Amino acid sequence: MISPIFMSVFRTGKMTVSPIKLMELEASKHSKVVSLAQGIPSFDTPEYIKKVAIDAIMSGKSAKYSLTNGLPELREIVAEELRKEGMHYHYQSEIIVTCGSIEGITASLLAILNPGDEVLIPSPVYASYAQAIKLAHGVPVFVPLDEEGGWSVKVEEFEKRITPRTRVIFYCNPSNPTGTIFKKEDLLLLADMAKKHDLFLLSDEVYKDFVYTNEEIFALASIPELKDRVIRVFSFSKAFAMTGWRVGFVHSSAKNITEILKIHDSMVTCAPVVSQYAAIGAFSEEGKKSIQEFKTAYIRRLKMTTTFLNTLPDVFSYVKPNASYFVFPKLVSKSEKIINSQDFCMELLEKTSVALVPGVAFGPTGEGHVRISFGRSEKDLQEAFERMNLFFRHFTLSS
Amino acid sequence: MISPIFMSVFRTGKMTVSPIKLMELEASKHSKVVSLAQGIPSFDTPEYIKKVAIDAIMSGKSAKYSLTNGLPELREIVAEELRKEGMHYHYQSEIIVTCGSIEGITASLLAILNPGDEVLIPSPVYASYAQAIKLAHGVPVFVPLDEEGGWSVKVEEFEKRITPRTRVIFYCNPSNPTGTIFKKEDLLLLADMAKKHDLFLLSDEVYKDFVYTNEEIFALASIPELKDRVIRVFSFSKAFAMTGWRVGFVHSSAKNITEILKIHDSMVTCAPVVSQYAAIGAFSEEGKKSIQEFKTAYIRRLKMTTTFLNTLPDVFSYVKPNASYFVFPKLVSKSEKIINSQDFCMELLEKTSVALVPGVAFGPTGEGHVRISFGRSEKDLQEAFERMNLFFRHFTLSS
Repeated sequence: MISPIFMSVFRTGKMTVSPIKLMELEASKHSKVVSLAQGIPSFDTPEYIKKVAIDAIMSGKSAKYSLTNGLPELREIVAEELRKEGMHYHYQSEIIVTCGSIEGITASLLAILNPGDEVLIPSPVYASYAQAIKLAHGVPVFVPLDEEGGWSVKVEEFEKRITPRTRVIFYCNPSNPTGTIFKKEDLLLLADMAKKHDLFLLSDEVYKDFVYTNEEIFALASIPELKDRVIRVFSFSKAFAMTGWRVGFVHSSAKNITEILKIHDSMVTCAPVVSQYAAIGAFSEEGKKSIQEFKTAYIRRLKMTTTFLNTLPDVFSYVKPNASYFVFPKLVSKSEKIINSQDFCMELLEKTSVALVPGVAFGPTGEGHVRISFGRSEKDLQEAFERMNLFFRHFTLSS
Repeated sequence: MISPIFMSVFRTGKMTVSPIKLMELEASKHSKVVSLAQGIPSFDTPEYIKKVAIDAIMSGKSAKYSLTNGLPELREIVAEELRKEGMHYHYQSEIIVTCGSIEGITASLLAILNPGDEVLIPSPVYASYAQAIKLAHGVPVFVPLDEEGGWSVKVEEFEKRITPRTRVIFYCNPSNPTGTIFKKEDLLLLADMAKKHDLFLLSDEVYKDFVYTNEEIFALASIPELKDRVIRVFSFSKAFAMTGWRVGFVHSSAKNITEILKIHDSMVTCAPVVSQYAAIGAFSEEGKKSIQEFKTAYIRRLKMTTTFLNTLPDVFSYVKPNASYFVFPKLVSKSEKIINSQDFCMELLEKTSVALVPGVAFGPTGEGHVRISFGRSEKDLQEAFERMNLFFRHFTLSS
């Protein structure tokens, strides 16, 4: 017999499996489903990157652990890539190769947070952030973004939520799920605030390679005097269609990296070595060509997506994304009432077999919205848009 | 300026990088070093396993995330392998494919422990356990094993360290670093104790395939009524020479796995997919043949190792290992004083360029011992043993 005390020990009670994955799971029960839910590029990993990985396997280089912070060769390449973007980090002491960006995020939060510490995150923001904060015994505090201002950061909204327990401001730029870019001047104000209140800034920049305007992605990690405060994560998953490989990196000051490394070592020992070789392939000149090809495709898909949304102004109202492969339209309500995004998505799936993610998954400000991933293939996008068009021209959802 | 408060926030202060890795790092500074320190098989991953991984890459199957709990195909194979060993676990709800065994361990501890909860671990035991417990805000409590009794479990030693905060008994069987097997009757007593005090049993069985006697490795996970208490981890790393691939699994009751899955999802999303395919290759008939080949080699290496140790009875006294590829000899002291293992290993490295791991790395009972890994190549073993023989026949260490 299991006692009631035993039952209560799990500290994961407050955690949930990502609503994005729950939607995928629900969708998988429908035959002929078209999913624009999960944020996975439709592409296979580029041939050149695969070749580098295969060569590593064949030559016996992938069998054994790497150093816990990653292959020195890869860290040198990462340092060089960062240098080209104006970020100066030493490959020996300031960079850790991680098992995707989420591992870098979780390891950083586990290193920083004491139980009960608060982390400010924008709302809407990638659903897994709140879970990672809870995993580390922290408390996620949502800060609304300004939809009318193009989903921009309103620094005063952050400032007024700071308490003595606040330790970190954690954001995603370009933003998932809104596909928008945070302004440099706003990021600098956040940095001032972090200095004033002695906070860390955790910046996830995995969509930085997919920008469709002339706007600059500004990285606070490029400011030398912020090195001790800024922890930046990147992943090869999105830029190089490598989600399955689980490889990314985290960089910060040597002092911070020393502490994060202890956690990383206890979490995974090292990133998968075959994937580290794939990452070396990705950051070669040959590997980087694929980013441009993907970007060209995403520009086409963004056009398809906005064309579709423009045909249904009674259903969707949206801020045009200038980056990533997400759009986060508002569900147009005929009354004052905000539309329940969960009900909307479930009914849409039921009626059309199209899967979108309910906006509430990304925080309270996300309610009344849905996330559409245009990272999916043009065929899928076309099919999903046709189904929704057909449906909404003749019917409305009960929600 | 960074304030003193900022400096103190890291909760990793009590954590250290594995002493095994520190020894490897120290060793890497010496030219012509021969290391018997880190527990890595000397072999490359078997060709057949590599082929399965390469096929997955080439056919585009490794690009995208798998389900967070792993490829269904792999989980079905794992469930079948477990069934053959008398353990009945459902592939859909009771198994998670992990990023090596350490990820399964850390995810389990993060799911179970509340800050301040205590975990009983044998002493000596694999150095990373205490770190993983600290990462999860737990408190490691060392329980001495009985060296005279062949490094066996003395259940009363566990029992007397139980407090109201004790949540888990966490062990490695066969044992790293001693290379010994825990007796079935002792494990059953531990299980009784776990029932009485409402504890989890976390069992790491990564060396189960390398047993050199007729002794049985008994898994508490084979007892159906313990399913809600026992969490068992396994890794492909040691059995199949796949340490670099980062793939293993954890299994327990559906209730426990549901909670651990939330943590796993937040830590790594999923295990590297290419490595999951390699694991499918490993558990094929062709893949499993390699275990026997490795075992034959390890039997030869164990013989070399004991032959060497027998020539230096004034330096080393040991319990013959019956499993794994470790031996954990005691350093023979000319006085009552226990020899400082850290000083011994550092001086040995200095004088002979042979790297061993100081026993204190594995807990207080490990002091006065060293760990020798005979997973290394016969050439390395021969060279290391010759150097030590030559040295100890003419000199003694100041420690």
